[in-house]
Formats: sequence, structure tokens, C-alpha cells
Amino acid sequence: MSSKECVFCEPGHFADKLIATNELATAFLSTPRLTPGHTLVIPKRHVELPSELTSDETGAIFDLIGPIHAKLLGSIAVGVDIWQKTRPEVAQDGHKVDHVHFHILPSTPGEELYGEALNWRRPNFAPLGDNERLQMLGLLQSENQ
Amino acid sequence: MSSKECVFCEPGHFADKLIATNELATAFLSTPRLTPGHTLVIPKRHVELPSELTSDETGAIFDLIGPIHAKLLGSIAVGVDIWQKTRPEVAQDGHKVDHVHFHILPSTPGEELYGEALNWRRPNFAPLGDNERLQMLGLLQSENQ
Repeated sequence: MSSKECVFCEPGHFADKLIATNELATAFLSTPRLTPGHTLVIPKRHVELPSELTSDETGAIFDLIGPIHAKLLGSIAVGVDIWQKTRPEVAQDGHKVDHVHFHILPSTPGEELYGEALNWRRPNFAPLGDNERLQMLGLLQSENQ
Repeated sequence: MSSKECVFCEPGHFADKLIATNELATAFLSTPRLTPGHTLVIPKRHVELPSELTSDETGAIFDLIGPIHAKLLGSIAVGVDIWQKTRPEVAQDGHKVDHVHFHILPSTPGEELYGEALNWRRPNFAPLGDNERLQMLGLLQSENQ
């Protein structure tokens, strides 16, 4: 997809929602948003996979995330999630945008987000078995890493 | 908490689960794990808040995340989530470790993780109202950003 079809590449898309920007990244309030303070942080360059981000871009993205994360924790939030989701096969719509973005999601005890994010599918956690361990290491390790 | 009490600071803790390492970060298979390929990426330095990470550390962390993310997407996964959760008030246990870590979670269509992560609480999304927009910008913007 070209950046021409991307709302996050539109000049002015988040002008009235802008929190902070630096050379390579932009932070702005999400709309629609899940909870007050729900923030998105994106690379300025149109990239659709985290693996396409340069070290400078991820550094710049987290240079913006850090202070926002700290301000949320120091004010309206007791917990904060950072979440990036990649679903190449799902078409874009009003909720789903392909341009890589990191969600910053504040929450407080008692809210669904606070507990669910922490415990999410906890019953489904299982010990890492030895066969799976070797299989996954074979898949994910590489000689040049 | 000192790093002496942290499993992720123990030398050899993930020796048999190590995927990749660089100067500032380490990637290893999670145990317990949510799904095959569930990976954790941590800074080598004991840090408990994302806002304490340096740009070099976040760059190094994502230098490890990128290739793993790409390998998962190219093999066992159709979707991948990157998730970092901060809950300072929740005590450590067998699931919760304070040392900052980024989850890499592969999933495929039909799995709960694939759809839920994408649509999670979608009904609870709401447009960003103007009062909230101004309130949150007042909270999160700063003069020196």
C-alpha cells in the first residue's frame, strides 16, 4: 500500500491531537480511543512491519513513548500497556491501520484493561517443553545473529 | 528491587532458551509460554519502567525483535503482537517479573490470540471527545517536547 492511501501519512491528520514529535516519530491521541489517554506513536516513514523499522526509528519512537508513559503513570494510570499488533491479512478499516503504530494504554485497578491485560489467558500459559524449545530455537536462532 | 532478586538478571537463567543477544539486550523463549514461539526481549540492564530505557537500549531491543518478528510471520504466524505491560503495584510471581520485557506473541487465524488481540474491547472504543482531547493534551504535552 502506498502512503497516499494511509491516514497516518496525511499531513494534518493528527494536528489537533498531537502530543509530541521528533525527527523520526510522532505521538498523538488515538481516536477512536479505548480509554482516556490512549496514545499512538508512529514512525514518520510509512512502514507496515516492525521488522522494517531502523534502530534510529525505534529509538525515536521510544524517546516519545517514555515521557508519555511516565506522565500517565504519575497521574491517571496505575498500569500502562504498550502494544503493537501486526495482522497483514486483515484489511484496513476505521479501527485497523497498516502504518506501524504503538498503542500506549493507561489503566487503573478495577478497570477491565488493568486486570485483563495482566492476566490475559493466564490459564493458557504452559511450561515450555523441551521438544518445543528445540524446535523454536531452530526456527528463531540464526547463524548471523 | 535490586537486580539480585530478579530472575532475568540471573546469569544462565535463559541459557538453554537463548535466541539472540547483542550489547544491550537479550531475546529468549518464554517459560511459561502462551503459545509456541512466545519470546521475551529484555534490556541487559535491570530497568523496571520503559521510561528508564535509553534510546540505545530500545534500539537494541528492537534490533532483536525485528528478525524474530519476521521469522515468525514467515513461518508459524499470520499475526504477531508485541506487548509490554507495566504494573508497578502488582507483586512479582511465577508469571510477573518486574524487569522490563517485551513479549513477542505469534498467532494464526482461528486462535483466540489472533482475533482477540485485534478486536480486544473493540465495542468499548469511542470517539475522542473535544473536552477529553484538551484535557489529555494538557496532561501529556510539555513545553520541552
